[in-house]
Amino acid sequence: MPVDPAAHAAPDDAGVTRAPATATAPPLTTSARSKEVRAFAVMDIVARVAQLRAAGEDVISLCVGEPSQGAPAAVRARAAEVLTDGTDLGYCPAPGIEPLRAALREHYRRWYGLDIPLERFFITTGSSGAFLLSFLAAFDPGDRVALARPGYAAYKNILAAVGCEVVELDCGVAERFQPTVELLDAAQREAPLTGLMIASPANPTGTMIGAEQLEELADWCRRHGVRLISDEIYHGISFTDSKGECALAYDDDAVVISSFSKYWGMTGWRLGWAILPEDLADPVAALAGNVTLCAPVPAQHAAVEAFSEAAYAEAEVAVAGYAAARQYVLDAVPELGWTDLAPADGAFYMYANIDDVLGPYANATEWCAALLEQERVALSPGLDFDTVNGDQAVRLSLAVGPEATFEALQRIKRFQARLAAAEA
Amino acid sequence: MPVDPAAHAAPDDAGVTRAPATATAPPLTTSARSKEVRAFAVMDIVARVAQLRAAGEDVISLCVGEPSQGAPAAVRARAAEVLTDGTDLGYCPAPGIEPLRAALREHYRRWYGLDIPLERFFITTGSSGAFLLSFLAAFDPGDRVALARPGYAAYKNILAAVGCEVVELDCGVAERFQPTVELLDAAQREAPLTGLMIASPANPTGTMIGAEQLEELADWCRRHGVRLISDEIYHGISFTDSKGECALAYDDDAVVISSFSKYWGMTGWRLGWAILPEDLADPVAALAGNVTLCAPVPAQHAAVEAFSEAAYAEAEVAVAGYAAARQYVLDAVPELGWTDLAPADGAFYMYANIDDVLGPYANATEWCAALLEQERVALSPGLDFDTVNGDQAVRLSLAVGPEATFEALQRIKRFQARLAAAEA
Repeated sequence: MPVDPAAHAAPDDAGVTRAPATATAPPLTTSARSKEVRAFAVMDIVARVAQLRAAGEDVISLCVGEPSQGAPAAVRARAAEVLTDGTDLGYCPAPGIEPLRAALREHYRRWYGLDIPLERFFITTGSSGAFLLSFLAAFDPGDRVALARPGYAAYKNILAAVGCEVVELDCGVAERFQPTVELLDAAQREAPLTGLMIASPANPTGTMIGAEQLEELADWCRRHGVRLISDEIYHGISFTDSKGECALAYDDDAVVISSFSKYWGMTGWRLGWAILPEDLADPVAALAGNVTLCAPVPAQHAAVEAFSEAAYAEAEVAVAGYAAARQYVLDAVPELGWTDLAPADGAFYMYANIDDVLGPYANATEWCAALLEQERVALSPGLDFDTVNGDQAVRLSLAVGPEATFEALQRIKRFQARLAAAEA
Repeated sequence: MPVDPAAHAAPDDAGVTRAPATATAPPLTTSARSKEVRAFAVMDIVARVAQLRAAGEDVISLCVGEPSQGAPAAVRARAAEVLTDGTDLGYCPAPGIEPLRAALREHYRRWYGLDIPLERFFITTGSSGAFLLSFLAAFDPGDRVALARPGYAAYKNILAAVGCEVVELDCGVAERFQPTVELLDAAQREAPLTGLMIASPANPTGTMIGAEQLEELADWCRRHGVRLISDEIYHGISFTDSKGECALAYDDDAVVISSFSKYWGMTGWRLGWAILPEDLADPVAALAGNVTLCAPVPAQHAAVEAFSEAAYAEAEVAVAGYAAARQYVLDAVPELGWTDLAPADGAFYMYANIDDVLGPYANATEWCAALLEQERVALSPGLDFDTVNGDQAVRLSLAVGPEATFEALQRIKRFQARLAAAEA
């Protein structure tokens, strides 16, 4: 894809001639670390969904990791206001605008009964921005950081990009897909860990870490000098009577990371936060002042409204929709013959083993491709979450809501019935 | 700053007791790499400006690296529209929404006469996001990347954070503060370089790299297999008849980085772009899919309007203001007795040596602090841009416009006159 000077090239481009590359010039290369970041298996599915939809096909995609309702109306209204009312939309201090940090502080009082100093709230460009800054501030190249497999692939890809060694803990259905002290002990025996990354509710399984287990993990980290980083982005999307346990109630040195993307449905706004332990606040601020400058400012002003009663109420409508969709899946699983279903206590995902119903397909990736072609239902192949055991698993996202989930399940049953008939 | 359970703590937090840290637990530490990122000297100035202003003092700050006019009206109007007209504000593909990429492509035809394939435009979270992704995709830990000193400190701090070795080229007034082939040859003799980072117009000096010099640098990079990364964020803010030379006219393998922050005054929106060579497009997309997901989506839709005739015209008003402010500084310099003034052909900065007028102060940092206390004018100490020779330099930002710049210069003259009188 060469760059061609167009017909109306500026005069000062005219006389440019290029020296040919000499024979001895070493070739330009991409970095080795970028080659470690594998393309997601779901990308082929997503591309095919777009193709089919462009051709007018009725596709139900249960691949999407984002709520469909969008930002609360109060947030959008406030965003429209700050565009015209003279609010300063220039750079803000790296930790974010104070009204938003104060509103977040109140949110932690409301949901968790925790009184966290304002100085520890750090607004970031999505939770992604919080991961990057926290990893850079807490870990050096070569540091070993443990996390659950299956899990959200970006954790390990960001860690790898900044030079850390990712230690995958093999968390199966017996462990409810969450780290245990036993798994940590085993990893620590190989070589000392520097960090532990947890996620509750988790992607792709939706399982939650309860109070007792979180206390155990926090104690283990404290005893071993291991930094606990807790992704709490799905808090509030829960089918139990808990919003999710905040790691700060158990470990004052933990980094808590979250975002407006999931509970409040603000994915594209790229706004999240970290709650930093005292020793990381200055290093993160210094890094952010260079690496990101600040999080998007119009969104910060608007997000203050996410903590209004109306916005909480709007978010709960979406949560009720995920709960209904989840129940449809739970009801369908016995007939589907899927196994090792993760107890999805929260988030909007279900993760299951489809080994028993693969039929003629070698793995879940091929099975998903066939399902999409035959029934116009898109699921995420498990390989994106577990490169070791994920090839027999699928993830369903409930973010499309109950009606679409119900219809998708009817189509999957029809697909599987055909596979079973062909085998019989 | 401990986390205290508040009075209305949730019941499930009640019974939590914490195990004391054992004597053998290693202490948690911050990363070594975060300690390399030094706090900016200007931060003390900025904090003191805020204090003085809060106390009602009339402070003129020439520290700020951002335009005061804000986003063009057409951009703000479009942003308000997409909040209510049903536009999908969820995640977008990692490279950005297609209408914005297409508008950017047209912008490169308009300004440079370059016809660049759409696939090479990658929308990022500010130019900061473009630096991070490009550095990760192009360079591995230990790779040597050269850049000019003085320069924008974030370049080297981001490079250091991702493990690269920063090779500073000592670019003085004789080199117009820009890299030369001779400096590159010398650096290459020490050990092979992997990358060269250039900036034109540059921060803090405002100097530009002309067509001939850019061709020389590009040829040198090609001959030595060195990746050229060109920061063109100040393009369009120019006091010559050139918008700035686009590196892609000289090197098809270069990475060009820019942003809506400066020419269009959209700093807080956090929106920039990279134009990627063919081999880096896929690696950057894969990295972005993990590290950032996508750039802020409401801002992307709004930014399409930055390429309207009205928005270009609005931007030119700001540029004319910088030109007038620059002339006031040029007129004042002989009386001020500053030396080594960089020929600020673009951007909105002037950089000068104040060694001859330091008076009783040991360095520019102390001189700037005294100026602020006595005359309520804030300048940036040069140390932030040059840790070797910068302690006798200051940077003025013209972004406040001509009137404030003129008044600031009167105050600086008064300050210096007092210093001279005390010495006489």
